[in-house]
Amino acid sequence: MRVEIITIGDELLVGQTIDTNSAYMAQGLNSVGLEVHQITTVSDKKDHILEALAAAEQRVDVVLITGGLGPTKDDITKHTLCTYFDTTLEMNEEILGRIVAFFTSIGREMLEVNRQQAALPKACVPLENLRGTAAGMWFERNDTVFVSMPGVPHEMKGLMDNQVIPRLKERFNTREIAHLSIMTQGVGESYLAEMIADWADSLPAMGISLAYLPSAGTLKLRLSKYGENGNTGLMTELRQKAEELVKEIPTIAYGYNEESLEEVVGQLLTERGETLSTAESCTGGLIAKFITSVPGSSAYFEGSVVSYSNRIKHAFLDVSESDLHEHGAVSKEVVEQMALGVRTKMNTTWSIATSGIAGPTGGSEEKPVGTVWLAVAGPQGIVSRKFMMGNDRRGNIKRSALSALNMLRIEILKEPFVN
Amino acid sequence: MRVEIITIGDELLVGQTIDTNSAYMAQGLNSVGLEVHQITTVSDKKDHILEALAAAEQRVDVVLITGGLGPTKDDITKHTLCTYFDTTLEMNEEILGRIVAFFTSIGREMLEVNRQQAALPKACVPLENLRGTAAGMWFERNDTVFVSMPGVPHEMKGLMDNQVIPRLKERFNTREIAHLSIMTQGVGESYLAEMIADWADSLPAMGISLAYLPSAGTLKLRLSKYGENGNTGLMTELRQKAEELVKEIPTIAYGYNEESLEEVVGQLLTERGETLSTAESCTGGLIAKFITSVPGSSAYFEGSVVSYSNRIKHAFLDVSESDLHEHGAVSKEVVEQMALGVRTKMNTTWSIATSGIAGPTGGSEEKPVGTVWLAVAGPQGIVSRKFMMGNDRRGNIKRSALSALNMLRIEILKEPFVN
Repeated sequence: MRVEIITIGDELLVGQTIDTNSAYMAQGLNSVGLEVHQITTVSDKKDHILEALAAAEQRVDVVLITGGLGPTKDDITKHTLCTYFDTTLEMNEEILGRIVAFFTSIGREMLEVNRQQAALPKACVPLENLRGTAAGMWFERNDTVFVSMPGVPHEMKGLMDNQVIPRLKERFNTREIAHLSIMTQGVGESYLAEMIADWADSLPAMGISLAYLPSAGTLKLRLSKYGENGNTGLMTELRQKAEELVKEIPTIAYGYNEESLEEVVGQLLTERGETLSTAESCTGGLIAKFITSVPGSSAYFEGSVVSYSNRIKHAFLDVSESDLHEHGAVSKEVVEQMALGVRTKMNTTWSIATSGIAGPTGGSEEKPVGTVWLAVAGPQGIVSRKFMMGNDRRGNIKRSALSALNMLRIEILKEPFVN
Repeated sequence: MRVEIITIGDELLVGQTIDTNSAYMAQGLNSVGLEVHQITTVSDKKDHILEALAAAEQRVDVVLITGGLGPTKDDITKHTLCTYFDTTLEMNEEILGRIVAFFTSIGREMLEVNRQQAALPKACVPLENLRGTAAGMWFERNDTVFVSMPGVPHEMKGLMDNQVIPRLKERFNTREIAHLSIMTQGVGESYLAEMIADWADSLPAMGISLAYLPSAGTLKLRLSKYGENGNTGLMTELRQKAEELVKEIPTIAYGYNEESLEEVVGQLLTERGETLSTAESCTGGLIAKFITSVPGSSAYFEGSVVSYSNRIKHAFLDVSESDLHEHGAVSKEVVEQMALGVRTKMNTTWSIATSGIAGPTGGSEEKPVGTVWLAVAGPQGIVSRKFMMGNDRRGNIKRSALSALNMLRIEILKEPFVN
C-alpha cells in the first residue's frame, strides 16, 4: 500500500515554516507497514491543490493532506475538497456540539467563523479532533482513501495517533509489523554501535532490523520485524532481544519506546514513595520543566531553586561564598553544595544540581564553553561528575538536563528498596 | 518565474530526516523574487526521479534538485540526470583536481568512489562546491533550468549562496519580494481576525497579502508584497502597515519576524538595567527555561523558585499558610504573595508568579482544569489576572508561560524609564 502526503501552505513554500509534520506522519505510517511514496508541498491556491490531489490519486492508495483547515479566510482546503469530491458543505451538529463545548471549557466567546468549522463536506466521515476545533475528514473514492487534517502539529499528531493510523490499519490488510525501541542516554551513536556490536550482529539472522534514531541528548534504537498477517509473536521476539541488551548496558538503556527519562524517574519515585528537588544553574529550570511535564508529578516533586546568579546560590542554597570565590560557580565544590543545600532545605529524599557554561560566552581556557558539573544527593550521600559538552547553547542545556536525570535514575536503582 | 524543489532521499520518506533544506532554499529564492511553486520529495529510485523531473518541467521555469550526489551506491541522481538529458558521464579534470586537493587538505586517503565524483554529465555546467566533493550541476533545456546539488545541508547552503542564487538572478529578470511578520500573543486566530478586520481589509488595495501562522501560545501575522525588479521600497511599505497595527494592538503585538517574547523582554530589561526573578508553580520552571535560553540572560535574570508544593510556597516565598488553606494555591491571594515574595527575596526589579491547574487531574467544579492565576510585581506594585486555558496539560503550561511573559512586557512598558 502506497501513501502520498500532501502538505498545503504558502508558509512552507516561502520557507518560513519547516515541514516537520511529514516526518511524523511517515514514522506513524511505517509503524503499520504503510510506505510513503512521495511528499508534495503545494500552495494555498485551489487549482494547485486540485492538481496535486488528481496526480496523487493516480499514484497511490492513500492520500494524507495537512493544512488549510483553520477558521480564517486563507484556509481553503475544505472548499477545495468539496469541489474535488463534487459535494457540498453541511452543518454537522455533533461536531458543532463539540466546538461549543470546547469554547465553553476555555471560557471564550465563540464566533461565526468557529461555527463554520462544523460545516463539513457531506461526502466525508468526520474524524474527531480532541485538541482543536478543525475536524479531520476521511473520504473514499475508487479504492483510494483521502484524509484531511489540520496543519497545527499538535492537532495533526492527535488525529494521526487516535484516528488515522487505527483506521488505516483496519481498512487495509497490512502485513504485521512490530517495532520496539530501546531508549538510551549518555553515549553517542558510533560509540554505542561499537559497544553493542555482538548483540547487533545477532539480529539479521532473526529477521530483525535495527535503526539508530538520535536526537539531542538521547538515542533511540529501533528494532523492527515484519511477518505474515496474523503472526502475533513478533513483539515477544523483539522484547526478548531488547531485554538482553538492557541487561548488558543498564546505565545507558533507560526505557522503551517513547518513554522519557522524567517519566521513568517519576515512576521509580512514585513506587518508592520518595521525593525530589532540584537546584539548577546552567539548565535554568529545564529539569524542573521536564519533571513537571509528567501528569501527577506533584506527588513526588517539591520544587526547584533556579539559582542563576552566585548571590542566589549563596542566599537560597547555603553555598559557601569563599568556595564560589575560590573554585568558581562551575566546580565540584559548588555543585555538590547546591545539591546538598536544596535537599536539606526542601527536605526531599533526592536532589539534583547543575552548574556549567552553556555558552556562547563565559568560557575560559581552564573551563571552556560546554564544561558542566552535575550532582545527585540522596540518602547515602552525594555523587558528582564533570561533563564536556559542545559549543551549542541549546544542546548543552538539554544534554545537561538529560544527563542529570539519568544520573539520578542510576543512583535511585543503586539504593536498596523494600516495598 | 516559478521554481520547483525536488528533494531526493528514502530517509525523508521514512521520516528519519526532517527536510530543512527546502525552507532554506525557499528563503533564498524569495529574497531574489523567485517564487517556489511546489516542493516534491521522492525516493532514491531512478524511475521515480525521472517521473518527478518530467512533471516539474511541465510546471515551472526552474527545478532545484537536492540529494543523491554522495559517493555511496544508493546515490543515483547523477546517472538519472544523464538518462533524463540523454548524455553521458565524462571525467572533469578541473573538478578532479579540486577533489584531490580537498583530500590532501584534510589528510585523508582518496578512494576510487571519490574519484568518480569528478565524472559529470557532458551536458551540464559544473558548479564549484567549496564545502565538499560533490559538484553542483546546471542544465538548461527549452528555457527550463535544472540545478542539482548535494543534500548535505552545509554543502547545499554554500552552493545556493555562492553559485545558484547569483546565477538565477542574472539568468532571470526577477521580481522583488518582501516579507514581514508581526508576532502576537494572547488572542486566538479567529478573534484577532475580527479585531483587526478594518486594517486587514486595507491591505489588498496596497497589493499586500496577509497570512495567519499559529503555534501553541503565539500567532504570527505575515505580510508579503511583490514588486517590479528594482523596486526597493517594498519593505518600507510593509513596515509602515505593520507599525500601524502594532500601535493599534500594543498589548497583543510584541515583536517582528522570528522574535520570541523572552528575547523582547530580555532586551527591555537589558536596556533599562533592570532585573527579574520568577516564582513558578503550574509552569514548573518553563518561564525560567525560556528566559535562560537567551544568551546573556544572566545579566538580568537572578533566578526562580519553582514551588510545586504548598510547603515550598510557604517556606521559600513567605506565602501565608492561612491563605493557602483558605483560598487554595490557585488563587489571587497566593499568586500575588508568590510574586511579592520572590521579588523581595531575590531583590529584583520585576517578578513573575504562576499558579494553576495544568491537568489532567486536580480540577474541581469551582476551579476546573485550565484555571491559571498569573501575577507580575514591579516598582509600582502588583497586577494579577485569572486565565481559563484548555484541557491539554502541555498546552496549558506553555500558554501560561507565554501569557506571563507578555504580562511582564506590558507592565515594563507602562513604567516610565529615562535612560
